[in-house]
Amino acid sequence: MHSAVDVIRAKRDGGELSDAQIDWVVAAFTRGEVADEQMAALAMAIVWRGMSRRETARWTNAMIDSGQRLDFSGLARPTVDKHSTGGVGDKITLPLSPLVAACGAAVPQLSGRGLGHTGGTLDKLEAIAGWQADISAERMRELLTDPAVGAVVCAAGADLAPADKRLYALRDVTGTVESIPLIASSIMSKKIAEGTGALVLDVKVGSGAFLKREDQARELATAMVELGTDAGVRTVALLTAMDTPLGHTAGNSLEVAESLDVLAGGGPPDVVDLTLALAREMLAQAGIDGIDPADALADGRAMDQWRNMIRAQGGDPDADLPQARHTECVRASESGTLMRLDALAVGLAAWRLGAGRARQGDPVQAGAGIEMHAKPGDSIKRGQPLLTLHTDTPDAFPGALEALRDAYTITPDGEFAPAPLILGRITA
Amino acid sequence: MHSAVDVIRAKRDGGELSDAQIDWVVAAFTRGEVADEQMAALAMAIVWRGMSRRETARWTNAMIDSGQRLDFSGLARPTVDKHSTGGVGDKITLPLSPLVAACGAAVPQLSGRGLGHTGGTLDKLEAIAGWQADISAERMRELLTDPAVGAVVCAAGADLAPADKRLYALRDVTGTVESIPLIASSIMSKKIAEGTGALVLDVKVGSGAFLKREDQARELATAMVELGTDAGVRTVALLTAMDTPLGHTAGNSLEVAESLDVLAGGGPPDVVDLTLALAREMLAQAGIDGIDPADALADGRAMDQWRNMIRAQGGDPDADLPQARHTECVRASESGTLMRLDALAVGLAAWRLGAGRARQGDPVQAGAGIEMHAKPGDSIKRGQPLLTLHTDTPDAFPGALEALRDAYTITPDGEFAPAPLILGRITA
Repeated sequence: MHSAVDVIRAKRDGGELSDAQIDWVVAAFTRGEVADEQMAALAMAIVWRGMSRRETARWTNAMIDSGQRLDFSGLARPTVDKHSTGGVGDKITLPLSPLVAACGAAVPQLSGRGLGHTGGTLDKLEAIAGWQADISAERMRELLTDPAVGAVVCAAGADLAPADKRLYALRDVTGTVESIPLIASSIMSKKIAEGTGALVLDVKVGSGAFLKREDQARELATAMVELGTDAGVRTVALLTAMDTPLGHTAGNSLEVAESLDVLAGGGPPDVVDLTLALAREMLAQAGIDGIDPADALADGRAMDQWRNMIRAQGGDPDADLPQARHTECVRASESGTLMRLDALAVGLAAWRLGAGRARQGDPVQAGAGIEMHAKPGDSIKRGQPLLTLHTDTPDAFPGALEALRDAYTITPDGEFAPAPLILGRITA
Repeated sequence: MHSAVDVIRAKRDGGELSDAQIDWVVAAFTRGEVADEQMAALAMAIVWRGMSRRETARWTNAMIDSGQRLDFSGLARPTVDKHSTGGVGDKITLPLSPLVAACGAAVPQLSGRGLGHTGGTLDKLEAIAGWQADISAERMRELLTDPAVGAVVCAAGADLAPADKRLYALRDVTGTVESIPLIASSIMSKKIAEGTGALVLDVKVGSGAFLKREDQARELATAMVELGTDAGVRTVALLTAMDTPLGHTAGNSLEVAESLDVLAGGGPPDVVDLTLALAREMLAQAGIDGIDPADALADGRAMDQWRNMIRAQGGDPDADLPQARHTECVRASESGTLMRLDALAVGLAAWRLGAGRARQGDPVQAGAGIEMHAKPGDSIKRGQPLLTLHTDTPDAFPGALEALRDAYTITPDGEFAPAPLILGRITA
């Protein structure tokens, strides 16, 4: 007989929880027999005492076992997915998924909506007229099997790791989000349950990321790679910089437009570089050799795949993208080199303009966001446009401008030292 | 604007909570705006990080402010109360309260019922026919004013530190009881709110006590003395041994009978000694000099006061005490010196016999419990009765006997070194 108090006390006093204790407490929480206040106390004890690799793997497995587990092991093509811990202007999934599908892998991606200053992939795709995030598991399998599509980005069903959904909502209101084992387990329970055979993690580090310090990001990446490996999912992680936004846009339809530039063979160098780096990792994890994804961007195959993928989920790839009704321009107050453009400030401003939501379930504006006309390292002339703010609700401008007040630094004779985009690579 | 998550995070990260944060979080918890799961996470963060003297005092004050505060400052006689952290066979309140009242102090004691292996004073007094634990604040004042009564032992009203009641119930199910500042604050919020001018704490240490180690007990005693002092209540604490039960009885009517022996000038030496030691401390805190409480035991004044006190709350001091319907005798399996009689084992056995309750609100058996025919240091002959078990429910005997299996040690040529009953004294 287990009791919630015994499990809480064991962890509170620094002990390791047994497999049986973990299985019981998660299942009993799912059934409502372990109360929210008990799970909150246990979560705080885990923030305090941590969990071992064995405990974290078992915890993750218990979260998966609380719901349905998809199985794409019977597909002819290898499955591989990418997950990003979230950043500002991070639209990489949009060009990446069709690109990797064009190179021969199947990409089953259960994705989320944005909360706070980082955008959500589903919010971005929903800027496309007709596109639907909700599709059934059978339809998902059909689309993954079709070589002309091969990639599905859709909403996770309610039955995917439901215990994790409840626990995450609880952690959010009880100050217990900040635990590496709990964060790793929350992400990986959904990724393992979605049935992918391989996984590439993009763990963001910097002002615009959830984790500000590289050592924290490395710890999280290691925990997630271990969890994937222990669950039989080939997993690798890249640590990538998130001090400045990715690309020149932050906002839903603005980022779709930029993704189309990349798929057309253009686009900002940082977005292209990261897309290709992640595509190479995904193809390697999927066991696909001898194909350079850069070719598939250059020759239009990735764009064809994108158009098929969007159509397969009801979207019209030729429809005009929504545009916000109001814009405001921020101009450079001096000449020099743009030394810094802060990701968090841009993310907050885009959020205040209507690109993101404060609470789950709130609507977002498809056209809201920020265009960046310069990136760190660029030479700037006084008075030149630096940023264009887009919104349907012009009373949001003052708050967004306030968020951007200290967002950038221009130095007259600044020597800009470019920082690497990819900071590290973590394997099992 | 405060938020529960901000308060939880501040404590989680090792910070000190401000007065405003403490006032807000306790008041909002009382109003139901801070949810149980948030308070549970905060309680675990307090178990982890502790609270400073200032934080603990403010927390205690916020608990008091959640309800009514009694005021007996207008009484002609000084008020003084005693609180014990709970032990096995701890009937000291019964002889002590009328004894101190007989010596000229007023004793307003809001008391509790037992839970688990330590008995509750109200359960003991309720073994007396007609005696009522619930009396109004006005009636309490009347009885305290009457020199022939002068002592009231009654149930705390629902409006006395109600936030503490809710928090205690929450801590009980979330593994967050074990925090010195929270324990100290829970006890002292009720004692300060009951309006006593002075307070003597009996902090138990040993196997039968909540705290097993003297350093923990000293820490708790110090925290409580500080809280009382900071709130203007003259407070002193004795650390007393609870490795073996107090006296020769554990159980409700059994302990009342033993208390009557003490009030009649007899009774077991340890119960008499501790009663007198606490009485002297109480009289000193109340500023009453030149009266030896031993005289009031010897000459029957304490017994008269007891009879008045019992009658004042509807009890019949001359009624026969309830007796359990079934008894079972445990005899010594060898001859020698009784080296050890374990308080926790006796407490658990008495509880299983029906003297205590497993859940709040359960009934208790007035007659159930254990008589101890020998105490550590006594010479024992093989076959002599050591313990008599009393219960109305004879199917409880096996469980009680199981609890007592390793409860005592008899050594043929044992040298018994008596340990002191009073281990320390803590003042402000």
